[in-house]
Order: sequence, then structure tokens, then C-alpha cells
Amino acid sequence: MQIIDVNVSKPYKVFVGENLIENTANMIEDICNYKNVVIITDDIVETLYLDTLKKSFPQDKNIFSFTVKNGEQAKCADNLFAIWSFLAENHITRSDLIVALGGGVVGDLTGFIASTYLRGVKYLQIPTTLLSQVDSSVGGKTAINIPQGKNLVGSFYQPIAVICDINTLSTLSDKIFSDGMGEVIKYGCIYDKNLFELIKDIDDKNVLEKIITRCISIKAEVVCQDEFDTGLRMILNFGHTIGHAVEKYHNFTDYTHGQAVAIGMIHITKLSEKFNTTPIGTSDKIKALCEKCNLPTECDVPNDVLFDVCCVDKKNLNNVINLILLKDIGECYIQKLNHSEFKDFLNL
Amino acid sequence: MQIIDVNVSKPYKVFVGENLIENTANMIEDICNYKNVVIITDDIVETLYLDTLKKSFPQDKNIFSFTVKNGEQAKCADNLFAIWSFLAENHITRSDLIVALGGGVVGDLTGFIASTYLRGVKYLQIPTTLLSQVDSSVGGKTAINIPQGKNLVGSFYQPIAVICDINTLSTLSDKIFSDGMGEVIKYGCIYDKNLFELIKDIDDKNVLEKIITRCISIKAEVVCQDEFDTGLRMILNFGHTIGHAVEKYHNFTDYTHGQAVAIGMIHITKLSEKFNTTPIGTSDKIKALCEKCNLPTECDVPNDVLFDVCCVDKKNLNNVINLILLKDIGECYIQKLNHSEFKDFLNL
Repeated sequence: MQIIDVNVSKPYKVFVGENLIENTANMIEDICNYKNVVIITDDIVETLYLDTLKKSFPQDKNIFSFTVKNGEQAKCADNLFAIWSFLAENHITRSDLIVALGGGVVGDLTGFIASTYLRGVKYLQIPTTLLSQVDSSVGGKTAINIPQGKNLVGSFYQPIAVICDINTLSTLSDKIFSDGMGEVIKYGCIYDKNLFELIKDIDDKNVLEKIITRCISIKAEVVCQDEFDTGLRMILNFGHTIGHAVEKYHNFTDYTHGQAVAIGMIHITKLSEKFNTTPIGTSDKIKALCEKCNLPTECDVPNDVLFDVCCVDKKNLNNVINLILLKDIGECYIQKLNHSEFKDFLNL
Repeated sequence: MQIIDVNVSKPYKVFVGENLIENTANMIEDICNYKNVVIITDDIVETLYLDTLKKSFPQDKNIFSFTVKNGEQAKCADNLFAIWSFLAENHITRSDLIVALGGGVVGDLTGFIASTYLRGVKYLQIPTTLLSQVDSSVGGKTAINIPQGKNLVGSFYQPIAVICDINTLSTLSDKIFSDGMGEVIKYGCIYDKNLFELIKDIDDKNVLEKIITRCISIKAEVVCQDEFDTGLRMILNFGHTIGHAVEKYHNFTDYTHGQAVAIGMIHITKLSEKFNTTPIGTSDKIKALCEKCNLPTECDVPNDVLFDVCCVDKKNLNNVINLILLKDIGECYIQKLNHSEFKDFLNL
């Protein structure tokens, strides 16, 4: 088992290893006291891991569970209200513990609920997808969607710990696994050439644990320097500006987030090569690795549409777009462009 | 004008004085940059002060406003959701400023929205009732009610500043003014004998400004020592345990919060005198001051009912009740009683 320290304002540890869910109660024993436990999960994860998790707790604990439907639409205000009520009806207090068991949707929703019910109760993250293990479970961003947009409501709220049981990855479909690989490759691109090379051996389970641990360490390093997302944390958005536009162009249906990020990383790096801001050949290296990981590599959104979508993005303040570009594999920088410069960048 | 520093994790200032609303933009000029302004208010305060506040801002600002119905029921999930959507539809970003213009209901609701929309946007408190000026606008507690109970959902989130324009108090009904006096007297009881004496001259406007400033200073001192409500802040609940039971017994209709607190302060001090934990005569002093301020003084809830209601209160953890008792006027302490001891205290 690997342990990563996340030294934010309220420090906590991320555990990465095999057979961890069944040892959950032991692992958090020294971290916090709690009376009752509320597990929030979805209907797919419930059938796979809920019993195992429940059994890990001592018999004197009351264990409540609330199951949402699997999928992005679970991150909605209706579930928020329903779970706030569920907690109140069961007299859950700040002495109790809330556990998120599932992927990013369950983690984001649960984190937001934990941060707001009684102005904050303790919560534990048990991410069960590759994407949520390397990305959303670490860093304290919680969110729900509202009809006007994704993640428009949320909070910064850190869990008491994160438990990444890599056994759960074996039950993921190829599509959901490769969804996570988009973000894994991103960490290699922006921060660590050795990680980028290591990803080529992802099929080896020992390497997988190493890769996940390294991704989380990178995320922890970045988050600790910018807990509230006011600067450096932006580099984690490499590939996301175009990726998000691709997702939006396809109505968030044809591509998973990780697939769109793969397309975004390759496309922005190609454009950056033409703009002389990234060495030629870099995009080909990313493309080769994405192909190996069964990720799509071609951007089918015209550049003028990309321009329009990117310019209304919520992160685009004062008509300046912050692009994350690569100096080389393993090293990135923030390039600020105004709308006219961004047009040039897109060859428009 | 008086200025009080609130030195919490994100320090801010509270301004107390006359004719402040019309100078709002000037007062916050050096405090923060912002593009657009969203004012959240209620339908009574809107007619009195919304135009004045709007006019204080430079003409190049877009000013949006959202009005809720006056009253406690405005602190609900429906308004939360409606205002989140309103902000998103008007493309409000973290570069903008949200302003709470109104009493505690508007302040609590607005603060919670500001803390959750886009994971937190800047907000300014302009409390327009005595109660919200001396109590809810300072300290960073935000909340909404859910069907299961009041303030069960919320956050700790500090405003960029608080502007207490005491001119707004002249438009309050006697009942709403005396509602605030319950909390004002509380500060004298727990913290400051001189303040307690000063309250006798409340009808003098200069004294009123002095009194409000002193109450806020006390609250700021306590909150700075216990921002997240894990200990000392409890002393602000003097009179509230029984007061809350009185409100609940009367279905939150017959008494305002401040009236219930007045009843609670007198009743708990009477009981404490009998229990030999407070000097005899203390409750009479509080009673005399409450009478002067047109506050009710007699508790019509039987002690056995008080016991039952207090024992299911959310603040009552591990079967221990924390009572705030007076050593004397101006000095309090926390008395922990288990349920059996609390029965004795109530003469049951």
C-alpha cells in the first residue's frame, strides 16, 4: 500500500493499494472518531462493493446507505435535497461519518452534501473508478450540476481521507477505464516525463498502482500550492479547454470526459506546434500513447466552433483565455491569449 | 462611524454608522474589485432601500436584483435553487459581487448562495434589522432551513465586509426592534456589565450606535477565537436552549427569536439561582431590563416539556447538555450536565 500526504489546510492521507475496502474501518481508526456511518453510492457500485464496505465497520455502528442512479444526472439538486432530508430524518450529526463510495459523480455530490449538512460533517472518499482515483477524489472540489451548467454549484471541502482500492478497477468497462487514462496521460504531459514513459506498461498491475500513486502525488503537489484554485491549479486543465468544447459540441453524450481530454491534449499541442510555442513532434508522442490506451485522437470540431465555445467558458475572464501548453513532455506553462491572439492560435 | 475588525481566517471589517447605504460603493472601494453586482433582498426592504443602494454604485456596473418574500420561509431550498439559476442565467462569475440587503433571513440565504455558487463568490452584508446587525451578519454562519428543521444546511463563509447603517433601524416595527434587543441584552449578560448598564439609555441614538458597536465587538472577539463553532462560541447561546424550546413549543409563531431568548435568559438564570450556580437576584436584573425593552419575561412552557424538547436538540451530543450560566451580570461559564443532572436542574 502507498500513502500520499495531501498537505492542504486540513491535511489528510490518500491510501492506494489492493483489498482496501474490506479494511476501511481499520484504516481510518486513528484518523477520526465517529458514531454512525452513512454511505452514499450508486446502483452499480452498490451491487459490487456496498456489502464489503458495510462489513468492514464494527457491529456497534449504525450503518445507513443512500443509493442514487448511476450517471452524471445524479449530481442534481433533487438528490441534494433528498439526501439532506435523509440525513436529518436519521438524526445524523457532526459526530457521524459520511462515506462516498463510487466514481466522480458520487464523490462530488457526497462531498457537497458533507460540506453543507450542519455546516459540515466529516466525510471519507472511496473512489471506485480510475478517473475519480487520480482526479476528482483528491483536492477538495465538490459540486453539483444545475440546468444552466455542470459544476456551477459546489464548495472546497477536504475529506478526512481517500481510500483508492485498485481492485475496483478490474470491474470497470474498457470505456470507463480508458476514460481515466485520459487524465493519467495528462499528468505525464504536464509534470513528469518518467510517468509518461511508465504509462506504456499500464497493463502490469504493479505498474498500475505505481502510476495511480504518482498521479495522485502530482495532484496533491499542485493542490497544496493552490488549494482554492486561483492560479497554479489551472495547469491541471491541460487539454480541458478544447476537451470541454468537444464534450459540449457533442452534447456530453458521444465522448467521455477522458476521451475528450485526450482529443483536447493532442489538438492543442498540434496547434501550439504550428504557433511555435511547443516543439514539433510533441503531439505525435501524446497521440501514440492515447492510441495505445484506446482513446480517440482526432478532433472533429471546426476551429471556429472551438473559438466560440471556448470564449463563453466560465473560466474565461476579462476576455483572456488561459491556455496550458507544453514546453516538452513533462513540462507545461500557462499562456494567456486575448481573443484576437486566440484566433491567430486557432489559425482563424 | 465605527469600524470593527473581525480577524478570522479571512479578516474583514464591520462598519457601523448613519447614512452608510448611500455610500456603499465608496466604502468597499479599497476592499475588493468587482465587475457586476447582484443584490438579494426581500419585498419589504426592497421598497425602502434598494434604490438607494443601487444608486451608490458607479454607472458602469450592471446591477441585478432578486427579491424574496419577507419572512423565515424565504430561507428555503426553492429560493436557493431559483437564485443559483438566476446567477447562472445572468452569467455571474467570481469577478462579481453579491450583496445581502435585509435582515437575518436574507443574510443567511445570501451567504449560503455566495459560498456555493461557483464554489464561492465575494459577498457583502448590509443587515437592516437590529438582530441581524448585532448577531447573524457577523461570524460567517450561513444557512437555509429544510422541512426537518431550521438551519440544518449551511456553511461557514465570511463576507468581504459588513455595513450596519443604523438609520435602517428607524423603519423597524417595535416588535422587530425589540426582537434584536433580546440578543443585545444577551451580550451584556455574558460579557460586559457596562454594556448591560448602557442598554438602559437605548432610546438615545448616539448610545444606540455605541451599543451596536459593542455587541459586534463582542461577537467578533468570540468568533475569532472559535471560527468553526467547536467550543467558546457556545456562550453566544445564553438563553437559547430554553428560548429555542419556547419557540418550538409555540410552533415558531407566537414569539420572535429575541423574545424567546429574553424568556430563556430569565428562566435559565432563575433555575440556576435555585440550583446555586448563579447569585440570587441576577435574574431580576435581566427581567427588569427586558421589561424596559418591551420583551416578554415569563416562561409558559412546563419544565418537563422543556426537558423533552432540549434533549432532542441538535446541539445535545452524547446525552450531555451544555448550559450557559451567569457567574454575574457580564460573566458567564459553560456548565455541562447529563440528562439526569439536567432533570435536577429543572426541579423534575
